[in-house]
Amino acid sequence: MAITQVSRKGDAPAALSAAGKAALETAAVTRLLVEEGILDYSGHIATRIPGRDAFVIQIGSNSRAELTPEAMLVVDHQGEVLEGEGQPPSELPIHLEILKSRPDVQAVLHSHMELAIAFTMMAGVTLVPMRARASRWKSGIPTHPDPSHIKLTEQGRDLAKTLGPHHAALMRAHGIVLVAESVRALFIDAVHFKENAKALMEVLQAGAKPLPLTEAEIAQIERMEMREWHIKKLWSYYIRKALSEGVLPRDWTDALVPSKEMLRR
Amino acid sequence: MAITQVSRKGDAPAALSAAGKAALETAAVTRLLVEEGILDYSGHIATRIPGRDAFVIQIGSNSRAELTPEAMLVVDHQGEVLEGEGQPPSELPIHLEILKSRPDVQAVLHSHMELAIAFTMMAGVTLVPMRARASRWKSGIPTHPDPSHIKLTEQGRDLAKTLGPHHAALMRAHGIVLVAESVRALFIDAVHFKENAKALMEVLQAGAKPLPLTEAEIAQIERMEMREWHIKKLWSYYIRKALSEGVLPRDWTDALVPSKEMLRR
Amino acid sequence: MAITQVSRKGDAPAALSAAGKAALETAAVTRLLVEEGILDYSGHIATRIPGRDAFVIQIGSNSRAELTPEAMLVVDHQGEVLEGEGQPPSELPIHLEILKSRPDVQAVLHSHMELAIAFTMMAGVTLVPMRARASRWKSGIPTHPDPSHIKLTEQGRDLAKTLGPHHAALMRAHGIVLVAESVRALFIDAVHFKENAKALMEVLQAGAKPLPLTEAEIAQIERMEMREWHIKKLWSYYIRKALSEGVLPRDWTDALVPSKEMLRR
Amino acid sequence: MAITQVSRKGDAPAALSAAGKAALETAAVTRLLVEEGILDYSGHIATRIPGRDAFVIQIGSNSRAELTPEAMLVVDHQGEVLEGEGQPPSELPIHLEILKSRPDVQAVLHSHMELAIAFTMMAGVTLVPMRARASRWKSGIPTHPDPSHIKLTEQGRDLAKTLGPHHAALMRAHGIVLVAESVRALFIDAVHFKENAKALMEVLQAGAKPLPLTEAEIAQIERMEMREWHIKKLWSYYIRKALSEGVLPRDWTDALVPSKEMLRR
Repeated sequence: MAITQVSRKGDAPAALSAAGKAALETAAVTRLLVEEGILDYSGHIATRIPGRDAFVIQIGSNSRAELTPEAMLVVDHQGEVLEGEGQPPSELPIHLEILKSRPDVQAVLHSHMELAIAFTMMAGVTLVPMRARASRWKSGIPTHPDPSHIKLTEQGRDLAKTLGPHHAALMRAHGIVLVAESVRALFIDAVHFKENAKALMEVLQAGAKPLPLTEAEIAQIERMEMREWHIKKLWSYYIRKALSEGVLPRDWTDALVPSKEMLRR
Repeated sequence: MAITQVSRKGDAPAALSAAGKAALETAAVTRLLVEEGILDYSGHIATRIPGRDAFVIQIGSNSRAELTPEAMLVVDHQGEVLEGEGQPPSELPIHLEILKSRPDVQAVLHSHMELAIAFTMMAGVTLVPMRARASRWKSGIPTHPDPSHIKLTEQGRDLAKTLGPHHAALMRAHGIVLVAESVRALFIDAVHFKENAKALMEVLQAGAKPLPLTEAEIAQIERMEMREWHIKKLWSYYIRKALSEGVLPRDWTDALVPSKEMLRR
Repeated sequence: MAITQVSRKGDAPAALSAAGKAALETAAVTRLLVEEGILDYSGHIATRIPGRDAFVIQIGSNSRAELTPEAMLVVDHQGEVLEGEGQPPSELPIHLEILKSRPDVQAVLHSHMELAIAFTMMAGVTLVPMRARASRWKSGIPTHPDPSHIKLTEQGRDLAKTLGPHHAALMRAHGIVLVAESVRALFIDAVHFKENAKALMEVLQAGAKPLPLTEAEIAQIERMEMREWHIKKLWSYYIRKALSEGVLPRDWTDALVPSKEMLRR
Repeated sequence: MAITQVSRKGDAPAALSAAGKAALETAAVTRLLVEEGILDYSGHIATRIPGRDAFVIQIGSNSRAELTPEAMLVVDHQGEVLEGEGQPPSELPIHLEILKSRPDVQAVLHSHMELAIAFTMMAGVTLVPMRARASRWKSGIPTHPDPSHIKLTEQGRDLAKTLGPHHAALMRAHGIVLVAESVRALFIDAVHFKENAKALMEVLQAGAKPLPLTEAEIAQIERMEMREWHIKKLWSYYIRKALSEGVLPRDWTDALVPSKEMLRR
């Protein structure tokens, strides 16, 4: 099974199947998000497998801090497990319906990010871009009203409708979804999403009127921005840190650490 | 003595007596709660022993971070130590009186949870369910007025009266009690209780009007909820984390880690 | 030199001189306070040597995280170094003048405790007892107006006057002093002082009217209180934790860990 | 190449070139600032090389937690890389323009310090000296309005104009710059800058009117102050801590740890 070949030592990285690569990166990003306090006992990521009508996702009951690519599932868009043994998370409809409705999206995160949830519990407060990196969410961050677990197709569909064309949605009293063009980008977005929520929270807690980014400021930020290079730089930082702290196994190094050439601007 | 057989290596878990099992799980949960910042230099848990008119509790002066099942006491409902050497916590009447008045309760936690105590020191503020998981406390979280140590039978009885049929009570300027159907469930409840207190605190600190869960929202959450499975999933996450970080001794593994079969929904 | 005999392995604890015991406990408490975030790059403790007209204090430039009894100084009440090589902290007058004016006090802490400093920077706010353990400071916590380093005898004398008969004083924009009947009690007081400052801060940040302990509540708390036993219990917890985490060297164990007999109520 | 000789074991520290010394200290301070949460995946330091018309700076994509002197670049004031292989940070103009306009400055830090950024997002709030050590910034802390990355010479020049003769400037929704007379002093300043921002934030969050240091208080603080000795004392504390925790390699010890003689007042 393609997906189990991932971390056999001595394999050249080129030998990884598309599913194996998606499984490895998704397992790695899940562990990184545990380190960042963005995932804990729950939450999960779905990552499309290029060239296949399927995605990888973890077994619902597996610990987010110990994921391995071998333990990931390959699931199709009807929710059928094609490869791997175990049950996907009970909130699978979140991923099924968002991936269906958003062909531009390659990876979806569902998390119970504490700081973001707070913004679904305050009357008259909206989470808006405060810090420069939050220009990513300039189109808006809608809030989905259903506070329960999203276990039914219909619930997933409603959530996908709330998300619409945006890159993030809050879920009332429950959590968030983030979407991105790759699972690496999804991780970097999650870090910045949390930073931005924290920034607005701090300003509100100080009792001051917040000064969100203006349209002119967002335009200026985007003129100077290199998203692709930024993602590579931060990916390199977090992956190396996690490898050196034992958060990721050493034998994932070759497949995950960007080369010096890749890090040239 | 039954309770000392608990962690001898090589014993099949089935060989654990009921008291041994209660002692092991109570010691483990106490250590987990230290890791979560819910217990520290004080606080304690009482867990009923199935089939006996008695419960296990720690020695008052033993460190919460180092408990072992061998060092736990078996105590009867008059407060007599039946097995083990040492003195129970001076606040034993908390447990005696709650266990007497609540036959449905299998485990009681007393903790000085910082975030919860704050809600006993604010005029006109009530701790209510904010996050989805806090639907558990929909019947209300009363506050007990006595701020002193609960060392007398009468004080314990008054606290049990304040708790009434609820799952949690705050203790003015002092701490909380939580009760649950098992010591495993008690641990998961404690984690969610803290999350919920933090959520309301954050909203208040932001100067915004809190939007607690409505009755309709609680009903919707409970429609989608599987408490038993949820407890198993989180138990698995926290136990495995604690074992891998050395918070729990490796030879407790077999008795504590749920099997894959147990984790099927 | 008496003070250097302290931690030679194999010495029975009884062989420790009074100065050696004070030096060992002061070094240990300093390291514990670094762990608790109450000391960092600065702050210091003076502890009287029973039977001598002198006290122990650290060398000003020595790292608070690495103190050893051998590196402590014995200083007399004129500020002369009697034993040890090195300079006391430049703020020595804090200790000289408080020890002179307060014969009941055996140990003095000066710390830059962040949460407490905040209460010297807010118009119209007073740090008062909120949590049960803070009944210790029921007589009041005065604020000293001099925000500079206390390097002159006169400055020290003014600070001692501000402290008066109380157990704690805040120092405007700078720090705190705490005093107690032993260096062990001083450590436990410091932990509770921080908890109480945090509790009041949280209530204020929530925008609520704080409900401090009333006189009747303080009386009730003190009726149920056993200060001496409480200090022993917490001392045991923190010392054992620090030994097991490598914060304190293993060969300090015998001199610091209370026996089971000492921990009986 | 001079800069690569830095950490070869067995070299007497005296053998370090001026560039080597600047590279070693800059790498060390960068790692210390990661430990303090002041640098993370981004931010950087430029340090002048005494006797040369050039400075050292890191490669933009290198991890701040792993810098070595061998991997630092020597760059001239036109931005040309004179020694080392790799690209400086894309925000190099920050350093070029500040070093050009401020001959008194030997070291420049750019950081995304969270607590400081918050002060660029609040209407009607100014970051002012609250804690005694913040008298350093008594001349004021201006805010630069450009929220984007500073990649163009013109942008750098504008930032240098905003900074003017001050020791710190905030950058709208983005970060800060700090400048000092040495890279060691820069590190200590960064620690105190963060403490001061935190102090004001706490007071604001408590809903109280802040009481900043008055002119008379600042004068009193400066009368008792010994900046040079204070920097040495804190440098010693942080360097020793970082060496003992493995944040810095052991073979940097001789070149970084101050001798006892240097620590005499």
